[in-house]
Amino acid sequence: MDLLKEKINQEGIVLENNILKVDHFLNHQVDPQLMVAMGKCFYQYFKKHGINKVLTLEVSGIAVALPTAFYLNVPMVFAKKIASLTQDTNVYTSQVTSYTKQITYEIRVDKSYLKPSDKVLIIDDFLAKGQALKGLINLCQQAGAEISGIGIAIEKSFQSGAQFAKEAGYDLYSQVRIKGFKNNQVEFYDD
Amino acid sequence: MDLLKEKINQEGIVLENNILKVDHFLNHQVDPQLMVAMGKCFYQYFKKHGINKVLTLEVSGIAVALPTAFYLNVPMVFAKKIASLTQDTNVYTSQVTSYTKQITYEIRVDKSYLKPSDKVLIIDDFLAKGQALKGLINLCQQAGAEISGIGIAIEKSFQSGAQFAKEAGYDLYSQVRIKGFKNNQVEFYDD
Repeated sequence: MDLLKEKINQEGIVLENNILKVDHFLNHQVDPQLMVAMGKCFYQYFKKHGINKVLTLEVSGIAVALPTAFYLNVPMVFAKKIASLTQDTNVYTSQVTSYTKQITYEIRVDKSYLKPSDKVLIIDDFLAKGQALKGLINLCQQAGAEISGIGIAIEKSFQSGAQFAKEAGYDLYSQVRIKGFKNNQVEFYDD
Repeated sequence: MDLLKEKINQEGIVLENNILKVDHFLNHQVDPQLMVAMGKCFYQYFKKHGINKVLTLEVSGIAVALPTAFYLNVPMVFAKKIASLTQDTNVYTSQVTSYTKQITYEIRVDKSYLKPSDKVLIIDDFLAKGQALKGLINLCQQAGAEISGIGIAIEKSFQSGAQFAKEAGYDLYSQVRIKGFKNNQVEFYDD
């Protein structure tokens, strides 16, 4: 996805510990034209998968998942990280460790919004060690929902998440795949 | 906004303490077609305000703010509730009390994404007592940014937030305005 590569090259910031900061267009300030282009791109790849629901994780997945769900013409569900008083106890939960934030948190989805009849496209902004992805997969498994695909904006291919997803047999499509970081520059795989 | 009223009537759930649960299409499961229709509606109202940035608050504001920013063709910035390791200390912060969640939290925006030259449209899903709105206004004031409008999906007109916004002179546009709740039904103002 050339537009996303360009954005990363122009506006991404490489930090220590293999962290790529994309706050300028994805994680804090968001480029809505890019999000819509990414949604179209996921739609093109996954449109024949019979998907009836897009599942993502708050917060950063939402802006990518929403246009994807719009083009697929299906509901988008975001798993939550914090319980609220208006959410009852009728939920599936899973544990996720964030290496960026160095915390372990619980993610949850109301059982009303994830069903055995669902064919789910999981969308997230990043795939690194796959912790958030495993949590989302786990929620789908608890619900008995089928995982019809996994769509990732930015895959750090040198970390273990992508390999895990492929070995587990999932149809993983990442819009950009990062080989590594060198002299504060991002090296991509060409697709 | 008739489509939003219909959704609230069909799928909203009135809970105790004047809480309206819209998890089925806005706050947990999200209807992307509705979000796009709402984005178009905000665009129609605010398109001549010279806006160059849409500001919202994670999490629930994002899905409404993104299509709005898309149609206005400007960046969307969401204020964050939790600090992360990839966010530096160069931020504006404000305190927000959530009556739904019964907590006080800090919201923050990186100073890079809110400037004195900005003409900001603030977007949020709900306006009740106006706590989140006051926090977002406060961030804009700290940045010296101009607030060119406030767009709300669901206004609980019987609570103090809407009156505060109007008395402060802001151009407030709410897509639905709720007069009150009666026998677990929502009563709207007709506009």
